[in-house]
Amino acid sequence: MLAAMLHGARDIRVESCAQPKPGPGMVLLRVRRAGICGSDSHYFARGDCGPFVPTRPFILGHEFTANVAALGEGVTAPVVGTRVTVNPARACGFCSYCSSGRRNLCRKTIMLGSASTKPPTDGAFAEYVTVRADQCHVLPAELDDTIGAMMEPLAVALHAVKRAGAVSGKHVLVMGGGPIGLLTAMTARAFGAVPVVLSDIVPARRKLALDFSADLALDPAVKHLSEQVSSLTGDGFDVILEASGARPALRQAFDLIRPGGTIVQIGTLGVEDVPLPANHLMLREIQLVGSFRYGNVFDEAIRLAASGRLNLRPLLTGLFPLAQTLDAMKQADDKTNALKVQIEVTAP
Amino acid sequence: MLAAMLHGARDIRVESCAQPKPGPGMVLLRVRRAGICGSDSHYFARGDCGPFVPTRPFILGHEFTANVAALGEGVTAPVVGTRVTVNPARACGFCSYCSSGRRNLCRKTIMLGSASTKPPTDGAFAEYVTVRADQCHVLPAELDDTIGAMMEPLAVALHAVKRAGAVSGKHVLVMGGGPIGLLTAMTARAFGAVPVVLSDIVPARRKLALDFSADLALDPAVKHLSEQVSSLTGDGFDVILEASGARPALRQAFDLIRPGGTIVQIGTLGVEDVPLPANHLMLREIQLVGSFRYGNVFDEAIRLAASGRLNLRPLLTGLFPLAQTLDAMKQADDKTNALKVQIEVTAP
Amino acid sequence: MLAAMLHGARDIRVESCAQPKPGPGMVLLRVRRAGICGSDSHYFARGDCGPFVPTRPFILGHEFTANVAALGEGVTAPVVGTRVTVNPARACGFCSYCSSGRRNLCRKTIMLGSASTKPPTDGAFAEYVTVRADQCHVLPAELDDTIGAMMEPLAVALHAVKRAGAVSGKHVLVMGGGPIGLLTAMTARAFGAVPVVLSDIVPARRKLALDFSADLALDPAVKHLSEQVSSLTGDGFDVILEASGARPALRQAFDLIRPGGTIVQIGTLGVEDVPLPANHLMLREIQLVGSFRYGNVFDEAIRLAASGRLNLRPLLTGLFPLAQTLDAMKQADDKTNALKVQIEVTAP
Amino acid sequence: MLAAMLHGARDIRVESCAQPKPGPGMVLLRVRRAGICGSDSHYFARGDCGPFVPTRPFILGHEFTANVAALGEGVTAPVVGTRVTVNPARACGFCSYCSSGRRNLCRKTIMLGSASTKPPTDGAFAEYVTVRADQCHVLPAELDDTIGAMMEPLAVALHAVKRAGAVSGKHVLVMGGGPIGLLTAMTARAFGAVPVVLSDIVPARRKLALDFSADLALDPAVKHLSEQVSSLTGDGFDVILEASGARPALRQAFDLIRPGGTIVQIGTLGVEDVPLPANHLMLREIQLVGSFRYGNVFDEAIRLAASGRLNLRPLLTGLFPLAQTLDAMKQADDKTNALKVQIEVTAP
Repeated sequence: MLAAMLHGARDIRVESCAQPKPGPGMVLLRVRRAGICGSDSHYFARGDCGPFVPTRPFILGHEFTANVAALGEGVTAPVVGTRVTVNPARACGFCSYCSSGRRNLCRKTIMLGSASTKPPTDGAFAEYVTVRADQCHVLPAELDDTIGAMMEPLAVALHAVKRAGAVSGKHVLVMGGGPIGLLTAMTARAFGAVPVVLSDIVPARRKLALDFSADLALDPAVKHLSEQVSSLTGDGFDVILEASGARPALRQAFDLIRPGGTIVQIGTLGVEDVPLPANHLMLREIQLVGSFRYGNVFDEAIRLAASGRLNLRPLLTGLFPLAQTLDAMKQADDKTNALKVQIEVTAP
Repeated sequence: MLAAMLHGARDIRVESCAQPKPGPGMVLLRVRRAGICGSDSHYFARGDCGPFVPTRPFILGHEFTANVAALGEGVTAPVVGTRVTVNPARACGFCSYCSSGRRNLCRKTIMLGSASTKPPTDGAFAEYVTVRADQCHVLPAELDDTIGAMMEPLAVALHAVKRAGAVSGKHVLVMGGGPIGLLTAMTARAFGAVPVVLSDIVPARRKLALDFSADLALDPAVKHLSEQVSSLTGDGFDVILEASGARPALRQAFDLIRPGGTIVQIGTLGVEDVPLPANHLMLREIQLVGSFRYGNVFDEAIRLAASGRLNLRPLLTGLFPLAQTLDAMKQADDKTNALKVQIEVTAP
Repeated sequence: MLAAMLHGARDIRVESCAQPKPGPGMVLLRVRRAGICGSDSHYFARGDCGPFVPTRPFILGHEFTANVAALGEGVTAPVVGTRVTVNPARACGFCSYCSSGRRNLCRKTIMLGSASTKPPTDGAFAEYVTVRADQCHVLPAELDDTIGAMMEPLAVALHAVKRAGAVSGKHVLVMGGGPIGLLTAMTARAFGAVPVVLSDIVPARRKLALDFSADLALDPAVKHLSEQVSSLTGDGFDVILEASGARPALRQAFDLIRPGGTIVQIGTLGVEDVPLPANHLMLREIQLVGSFRYGNVFDEAIRLAASGRLNLRPLLTGLFPLAQTLDAMKQADDKTNALKVQIEVTAP
Repeated sequence: MLAAMLHGARDIRVESCAQPKPGPGMVLLRVRRAGICGSDSHYFARGDCGPFVPTRPFILGHEFTANVAALGEGVTAPVVGTRVTVNPARACGFCSYCSSGRRNLCRKTIMLGSASTKPPTDGAFAEYVTVRADQCHVLPAELDDTIGAMMEPLAVALHAVKRAGAVSGKHVLVMGGGPIGLLTAMTARAFGAVPVVLSDIVPARRKLALDFSADLALDPAVKHLSEQVSSLTGDGFDVILEASGARPALRQAFDLIRPGGTIVQIGTLGVEDVPLPANHLMLREIQLVGSFRYGNVFDEAIRLAASGRLNLRPLLTGLFPLAQTLDAMKQADDKTNALKVQIEVTAP
């Protein structure tokens, strides 16, 4: 089969390689469409992803639409031909995290298109990939390949909003107007948040946020932001979802949150400690909550998208055939203009 | 009446002053017994308490047992003579915090024995004090004055344990073996935490913790603490309650907490920011939660203490008549040997 | 002032009576617009409302828009002239229910326009009415008097949806297509429920539900409803909100609910016991939850309505001047065609 | 191997049969001690258990202690020789219930010692039994075989108390003084309930409840029970756990519950509908919640028992060798005197 193989920093080559075989409990998938995630860009830029250093060339990609091509031993569903999207994080299913409903915390998780395992686990920038049968989520006809390949980042957003507790009827701020921030704002709105405010230092992203789903967009660098927020919300936001990954943003969240409010950290911040006002957190009973990947939310994401409650299509800003994966990766690097860049592996 | 008046740093004088009168909705209380809190010690040591600078001499004390002495206009209960303890934080009852059950966050709260209002609000180191009728909680015969005057710090502990979510069946660590830490450990145990571990750098306090309620006491300064904790808990504690107010303790909590676990900040930390591993919090979906004072827990505290589930008596390490309030304050300063020092205002 | 006085069954007379005076903590309101609730219709039809038998003629009405006309002693806000809607249930603010955030359960509640007190408490079908200051919720310019007077029934719906826990991403069925059912469906949709299904035996109401907010409308009397529901939802609805008040509807809910699902009873059912499959509830861990009035949700309701997330206007099916209150009450009786009938007390 | 084979109503024969072999992912266990559950008694009495009719003779027993005797393919832990207790309900691990932490609702569950599958699944009244590796929970030395074989009914109690939400500091009533009722009361107490009250119509059981863990025992058939409860609790119990399986008990719970309170149905009630006051439930916002088996609570149960917080030993009222299983089953039938009867399969 053909695959876009990552050989090192900025070195992706579309080349022929062995087609994987589905073992017991697994299915072989024929990939149709795959999106580029920030972590794919990180691997592309540096050849590794923080502590995850690949021990051999491997295939990136974990946001995708595919057709079931073959079933491993013991698998009866989904049947061959079914069009699916995939939860790329394969949790063990039986540890204490898995059995208590928090499988995103499973220590034995195998992640597609990632060097977190040794050897790395190949992903979806390839004609074929294998996953465990339960990782597949059937796509209804309402969702085409473009939207189907957005279910994974939407799952990140859905999970983050759920980590905030109920947002319905609440004043919500999303920090950061990248794809995850926009999806988070869209989800918060679909879950009843009123108003949904987005902050980003880039004016173009603020404009985009308004087009997408935000009631208001703020510049976090403006003077007297607290006063502006007070006049809007009274005592501050009930919920702040930090999706920028900027360390000053998380610190600022504590100035903008209401007593009793919840701050959810979604963005990746780097390993260094962040100075935070812990006494203020105590006096005002603030919650600071981490959000990592997604729980059991893919079917919800699919149902929500299929219902028309969300307008995901404008997220797509680039589409390339598999042969041009290198160009796709380069376009995805343009953080000002690119939102979601996808690779068409199999033309429909 | 006689009262212990705070005139400035280390200047408390027992002197005669005007007896307060209960306005509409208020009751006059004859104080029986009052305990000294860490914040009383802070006022005594420095004459103020951080941003709360008294505009006139005033009376400290907010942990106490009393009898109802007179009723203000419109009050029918509790009747004159009833023995009560008091929730010293008088929330407004009608703001959005109060009406949603979070009255400890009410911005209009009037706190007994505190300079958070201008002028300061007199407290219970006096023969008489006035409170709103609903601040009174009737004491059953099972609870004598000593224990009755401990309901306020017990309420702090109860509230903190509730802020952790359910602790039943969970691995719980309490950091800090002062009165609040000990009460918190005792409460966690009474609520089903297994095991309850307490950490304190002072050996005497670790010994005390074992006598009180902890299954195990740890020295937080020991090398390889994480390894020790791993062998005990597997992936770390489910819940950590930080009651020491030491900044390194809060940082350490992040090394000892299980993925998905909850850290509750109870202790006062000072205004400076604390460097915290926010990326680690994100990746492991840790919750960091503030706990401030107490919600609607006084009747619970009373019921729990009256049931014999808690052994509070050993907390009392000193008892002085009102005339010797100065000596009582000095003894309370001895953080190594003193736990709870009380003032007998009216001999039973 | 003029008021529509209820003298007995089907005997409402618009007559002159004494204008009320606001006592301490209270405000006098000049009523602008008031809606007719099902309980108003019940009083009108029978002269009483179950156990609530009026001891004198009194004024109905508890859904309304008004202007602040005068302030009682001690009140500083909202200022005279402010346009408000009102939470008609005046909880005490200090009992254990109130202090734990469940003031709709307060046993001392005084309800406007109701004979639950002796003597009855006059309501808003009058030029003036008095309420406690905190019962007022300021209306923004986006909400005109029509919509402002719908905030009370919207609060009922909001509270019911919150009683279900999170509905976002869930399969939700609302039983009953009257005003509360329609508002509940609209709210569930605004909070992210997917799909929102409504059932009603009246075809016209099913059609209306689709126009309003439901993704699908079902006839509960159809054969093989379970099969139809299975093909739509798999194992059944995650949440069922019973707003019809029909006893067979509640029983049917148990056939349509998913294991682990939640049934919320909103409608009034009459005093007789309803046979329910309690063993089935045990085996499938179903929750059956009551929902009564509303908690602290008026500001949320206002914010949600003002944001344009809800289209409430089509609920209004009749408007009469105060002088024609009797006609208004009669039109409200026509359960097939009338949704919300309002009385214009003061023309804007 | 030897096994106690159920051939029909009251027909259990200890006979030789083929020893099972552990397939991939499974382990072979050598049974040490096994307890008799109410459902075992039901099968013994009638040959079936409601809708579960065995298609061949089979082996009962699902509460037990065992040693790991052999590992199936792919299993590495627990190692051969480990002493374990077992979660007898093998959920699939991957359906929507399993992945959201509610595996007790998994529709594909295979239950040990039960005819809910066709053919029936053999249980632990035998020298050997096979289970999936993750069903095993390692027993610490503090728990001997007697207590180890009680972890399954304790898990039922633990799960039920958790279904009530937090019980700490709450007024709790347990209805029914059989083994599950006693364990539930003991657990509620260990989780901080104050007071814990137990009701049973049998005087001997009320006496026993006091010896075990209850603060008070009530006769549910006494006149004026509501008044008695009011004087104890004020507005009623916060939580009622119905473990008697008596239909009048569930109805009575509605008279004894506080507004906003929670009733948990644990006992099996039979298939017929139970008349319940649904309007009362609505007006008072009562929750009626089913509790079925157990979630992920075995390690908690073990930790709690090993800590000495619970005194389980007096539950054992009979012990028989495997050869006398028939006598054991007969003794377990004596509901007045027998609590837990166990079978010693392998002498230690």
